[in-house]
Amino acid sequence: MKKVAVILSGCGVYDGAEIHESVLTLLSILKHGGSYQCFAPDKPQLHVVNHLTGEVVEGESRNVLAESARITRGKVKPVTECNADDFDLLILPGGFGAAKNLCTFAIDGPDCQFDEDVLSVCKAFAEAGKPAAYACIAPALAAKVYGTSVNLTIGNDEGTASALEQFGVKHQNCTVTDVVIDQDAKLVTTPAYMLGQNMLEVAEGLDKMVQAVFALK
Amino acid sequence: MKKVAVILSGCGVYDGAEIHESVLTLLSILKHGGSYQCFAPDKPQLHVVNHLTGEVVEGESRNVLAESARITRGKVKPVTECNADDFDLLILPGGFGAAKNLCTFAIDGPDCQFDEDVLSVCKAFAEAGKPAAYACIAPALAAKVYGTSVNLTIGNDEGTASALEQFGVKHQNCTVTDVVIDQDAKLVTTPAYMLGQNMLEVAEGLDKMVQAVFALK
Repeated sequence: MKKVAVILSGCGVYDGAEIHESVLTLLSILKHGGSYQCFAPDKPQLHVVNHLTGEVVEGESRNVLAESARITRGKVKPVTECNADDFDLLILPGGFGAAKNLCTFAIDGPDCQFDEDVLSVCKAFAEAGKPAAYACIAPALAAKVYGTSVNLTIGNDEGTASALEQFGVKHQNCTVTDVVIDQDAKLVTTPAYMLGQNMLEVAEGLDKMVQAVFALK
Repeated sequence: MKKVAVILSGCGVYDGAEIHESVLTLLSILKHGGSYQCFAPDKPQLHVVNHLTGEVVEGESRNVLAESARITRGKVKPVTECNADDFDLLILPGGFGAAKNLCTFAIDGPDCQFDEDVLSVCKAFAEAGKPAAYACIAPALAAKVYGTSVNLTIGNDEGTASALEQFGVKHQNCTVTDVVIDQDAKLVTTPAYMLGQNMLEVAEGLDKMVQAVFALK
């Protein structure tokens, strides 16, 4: 049974982890015989967005770990407690939270800052030669972790792709129902809602991602 | 193509709509060729629960409609805009939000109050002879809507079942992967996380619920 560490970034596409991507990823892990433990940084979100209006709610603050707990029905640990030795592989779903709370790519592009605790966990999996999968915009973190010459995708958006290539990675265009696999780095990426128009095609891409990362040796 | 109205109650099992149940229900609707529009009451939640600690957050207020928008990526309408004429059927996922924000069953049991706007929509589907499905604790609303002699389930919890029977309904025990169908009332219910121990079995029960309510004439 594959033991998977999953890093979430809040709860809601515009300021946290994308909910469909998170739930569908966890479902796929179980469906393919895996188990998971979720983690998230214990710190305030960059901001809170009213998902009805799309506007930032001034003066409101929410904690990334506590909001991530909504997706996991309470079971989530601080990312500082994630030890790569305890897991077979790592998965990061997307949502703006990955590019606002785990790093600041959504605001700062290639000059972004990375959450040091998250980066440290991601690097630990890479350095241990353990497979990892990053969905949607989360490959912005993979670009920093894996750097030069690794192949990855965020879909087909040229601006985002060229921003990522400034980390030295090679971007490959990819459809929502497919994945890009870098066999040497043991890295799987998929566009999810960077391209997805509905939940069915996003579910198909994420399920392919989970199968691919489970199959990596 | 079945057109489905879905009523949500926030975002998070302890104070809103259960996220897995909501996402898996929407996924099943699409998988079986349906389309959906989500609705929620535009009012404050009963309270906000920190999902990490399980404790009520004093002094914080969140809006049911705006929080529901997290599950729907922004696309959700006030429940007052839900016209049964525009849809083939109605589905209510569960979560404490169904028993805290759509009615007060979680607090008041059989003496609970019902959100008048939600109740009015639920009754409109019933009176039009259109099928409906209620998952998890949401059958508390169905009990009020359908009343005497209808068959439904919330799983196998005796206390909850007998509280519901005070509305005149007949409770049937049911496993998490199964459904109770009342053919005359065109009502389908399933226990979901009232019994579910993991997402796979909840997904199976909800998928069976969607198939069953799609099949009702």
